[in-house]
Amino acid sequence: YFKPMCLVTGANRGIGLELVRQLVGKPNPPEWLFATCRDPVGMQAQVRSSFCLLTKDPNSIQAAAKETATRLGGSGLNLLINNAGVMPESTLESVTPEDMLDVYKINVVGPMLMTQAFLPLLKKAAQRSPQTGLSCSKAAIINVSTIGGSIGNAPSMATFSVISYRCSKIALNMLTRCQSLEYKKDGILCTALHPGWVKTELGTEKAELTVDESVRGILKVLSSLSEEHHGIVVDWKGRTVPW
Amino acid sequence: YFKPMCLVTGANRGIGLELVRQLVGKPNPPEWLFATCRDPVGMQAQVRSSFCLLTKDPNSIQAAAKETATRLGGSGLNLLINNAGVMPESTLESVTPEDMLDVYKINVVGPMLMTQAFLPLLKKAAQRSPQTGLSCSKAAIINVSTIGGSIGNAPSMATFSVISYRCSKIALNMLTRCQSLEYKKDGILCTALHPGWVKTELGTEKAELTVDESVRGILKVLSSLSEEHHGIVVDWKGRTVPW
Repeated sequence: YFKPMCLVTGANRGIGLELVRQLVGKPNPPEWLFATCRDPVGMQAQVRSSFCLLTKDPNSIQAAAKETATRLGGSGLNLLINNAGVMPESTLESVTPEDMLDVYKINVVGPMLMTQAFLPLLKKAAQRSPQTGLSCSKAAIINVSTIGGSIGNAPSMATFSVISYRCSKIALNMLTRCQSLEYKKDGILCTALHPGWVKTELGTEKAELTVDESVRGILKVLSSLSEEHHGIVVDWKGRTVPW
Repeated sequence: YFKPMCLVTGANRGIGLELVRQLVGKPNPPEWLFATCRDPVGMQAQVRSSFCLLTKDPNSIQAAAKETATRLGGSGLNLLINNAGVMPESTLESVTPEDMLDVYKINVVGPMLMTQAFLPLLKKAAQRSPQTGLSCSKAAIINVSTIGGSIGNAPSMATFSVISYRCSKIALNMLTRCQSLEYKKDGILCTALHPGWVKTELGTEKAELTVDESVRGILKVLSSLSEEHHGIVVDWKGRTVPW
């Protein structure tokens, strides 16, 4: 269902790589799928077009946006999936300033810069779309978050000792919410997404879901997102995640 | 009502300075009140003991904790008010990585480091207190936050264009929540506080409240905090702020 132009960050492994795999494997794949990552080693050759970018480096993001615009010709970008992220272990006792700042840089500042850089292409996609309302096939920013960034749900995750990650992800939810308020007028859907607890390098082998299950759920959810999901956090089954 | 040992950061101006003024002006003032700031110029000589610390510098925080322990003799620290913070203007379009990281460093990493450094003194105060339950006169960490960090309330503040500040403050709320889950067993109350919109350098002249009104409210609220406020955000009138 994603004929449109897509971009996925963090596409060299885990959920990002599987998103790319399943998107290109669709009977009706995206016309362009840009898959980006910090480390292109391990990147599969399956994608129709890919390039590397350092989400920590503003200049490389700007360069990627320029390159994307060139390849798209006059078209816009319909779907930006800010998936890249890290989750180092850190307890309240052990967490360091460097850890807090590094994680915030990758998990929050990265998506912020991606959206700034690709906004003109997203706006173009929204303007050119014949569709009314908000949807991923028109124009959307999907920020991959986590239920670990839910403050209301925190007591049930008291032992989830990744403080720098949790602080960063709730900030990403706030960023998403603020983006949703700002870009509604431009017709761009903004939603944060909890992919579930997934067996990836980040989620570890103990996780509940295979990456295949999670991504199949995510793609189904993305295809059904509309105005009611604008500015909120949804999980891989489409359920609303509490703040 | 604050006979105990207190520490207030960001005490050279605004709410921090007024907290110090009103605390020492009480009929029953704290036995020790440590007032810290990054810039001691403008610091009033009204406090019984004060020293400067750079909340951006982990070493200076450790040094301050050591100095505080020495001055307290064998006593603990009852009340840590992490008040220091900044709010530069920034829109989704204009915000830079440097702005995001600087604000996060001061508004989130600062309070995190303060709590790490002063935790042994807070634990000591809790252990030595004859009081049961949780309270500011026993042992407490109060993180000064804002309703601007409320994601649920965000739509009513769509024009509040301080994106780096809002992302940092919601992260501070998450930090507070995680601290509350971790330090409950130690008898340390952890609460985030919205001081209202106050006429300070940060809040500007357009604000609703005088700093005197806000701080009178805050001190009344602090004196009444108990287990039911543990891990949540309350405002200067004691009302719960939504996530």
